Amino acid sequence: MGDPSIRLFVTSPLQAGVELAASEAQSHYLANVMRRSAGDSVKLFNGRDGEWAARIIAISRKSVRFEPLELTRPQETDPDCWLCFALLKRQKTDLVVEKATELGASVIQPIITERTQADHVNLDRLRAIATEAAEQCERLMVPEIRAPLKLAALLNAWPSERQMFIADERRDGPGLRPPADALQPIALMTGPEGGWTSAELDGIGAHPLVSRCSRVSLGTRILRAETAVIAGLALLLAGSSQE
Amino acid sequence: MGDPSIRLFVTSPLQAGVELAASEAQSHYLANVMRRSAGDSVKLFNGRDGEWAARIIAISRKSVRFEPLELTRPQETDPDCWLCFALLKRQKTDLVVEKATELGASVIQPIITERTQADHVNLDRLRAIATEAAEQCERLMVPEIRAPLKLAALLNAWPSERQMFIADERRDGPGLRPPADALQPIALMTGPEGGWTSAELDGIGAHPLVSRCSRVSLGTRILRAETAVIAGLALLLAGSSQE
Repeated sequence: MGDPSIRLFVTSPLQAGVELAASEAQSHYLANVMRRSAGDSVKLFNGRDGEWAARIIAISRKSVRFEPLELTRPQETDPDCWLCFALLKRQKTDLVVEKATELGASVIQPIITERTQADHVNLDRLRAIATEAAEQCERLMVPEIRAPLKLAALLNAWPSERQMFIADERRDGPGLRPPADALQPIALMTGPEGGWTSAELDGIGAHPLVSRCSRVSLGTRILRAETAVIAGLALLLAGSSQE
Repeated sequence: MGDPSIRLFVTSPLQAGVELAASEAQSHYLANVMRRSAGDSVKLFNGRDGEWAARIIAISRKSVRFEPLELTRPQETDPDCWLCFALLKRQKTDLVVEKATELGASVIQPIITERTQADHVNLDRLRAIATEAAEQCERLMVPEIRAPLKLAALLNAWPSERQMFIADERRDGPGLRPPADALQPIALMTGPEGGWTSAELDGIGAHPLVSRCSRVSLGTRILRAETAVIAGLALLLAGSSQE
């Protein structure tokens, strides 16, 4: 049956006996890298229909077809947590996307703040990183990676029921704690290497659409921007997931 | 007075008016990279005497002398938290050391477990990474980086009063929570990419010197080994530091 630990994200519906095709990249991976054969098993998920054990029914170097056999895990409701992070340089942005996927962010929204230095992002690359991280960490969905937005544009479209936790490097806020209701819509906001400006912090708090907002501390030290993302998501999500 | 944000770790005592010398690497950094001059200000810390504003009183390409002027922050008692992590490949070990320093580990102990793949570590390199991270994140101490130990050797010298939290990727333990007393001796233990073996987990729990030990979960997903370190330390330390 081959190595059943290969786990792939697909976009097609997953239903017992309803065949589907792998992408060209997945076909290359299965045929040329992992050297799978017809009859071998894989696991598939699509973010909607749970995780399925499936069988490879046809394989060539550029095309693979699967047949889903049985549901191995039903789809779960993930916490609804957006990560809105000031865009970082490429390597740190890659790290943020990978770790935010593992820790359970549902949406990853790069933002451009006054002191943000980076301005370029390759969304296809980030989506590939998030997909691979979700495949490896046994998530049942891949977070949505959105195109960068200026902070003002994000606020002007803010869904007012979503509670915002702003990681404030001045460290005088209360410590970050997970919300009492693990499924309520929340967002973690983290600033750039140079920090938020006072005007930005005041502007967020005063924005008419941002009715639920807390400035929170991540501890007594000044965390690097990417560390603040990982620590903040761990505190919001990893700590609450067993409750 | 120059840029007062340069912050350096030194080994000499810090006392008002008692001159001290920079290392050769620090002298190069100050003279050639940052182009400081005599009279410019820096901040110094040594892990014992708090943080001091100091003045450069002599500078050349290979040698700098400082005069401490005044204490800017008294030495604080950091949480006594060891990180015992199964050694990872170089890039991930570097990341672990940097992030563990930012998040407040007091000792960083690489361990060799049954499924540990990596076996080499450059302690000087890791110490340099920890020192730079401490300088940047405003810590008042640099964690001690210990030479790798086999798991059995670590356990055979375990201080029995130190509470051990084992990140168990099987995820059936309770969620990780900070200890009630933020200053009690604790340790986070994280496994290699391939996880702990059952024999290892059973052996730790049954070891006569390990009297206080919990297997804990870091959430519902399978975190990569380095993510488990960062998330675990955030939950143990960042969350408790404001209490």
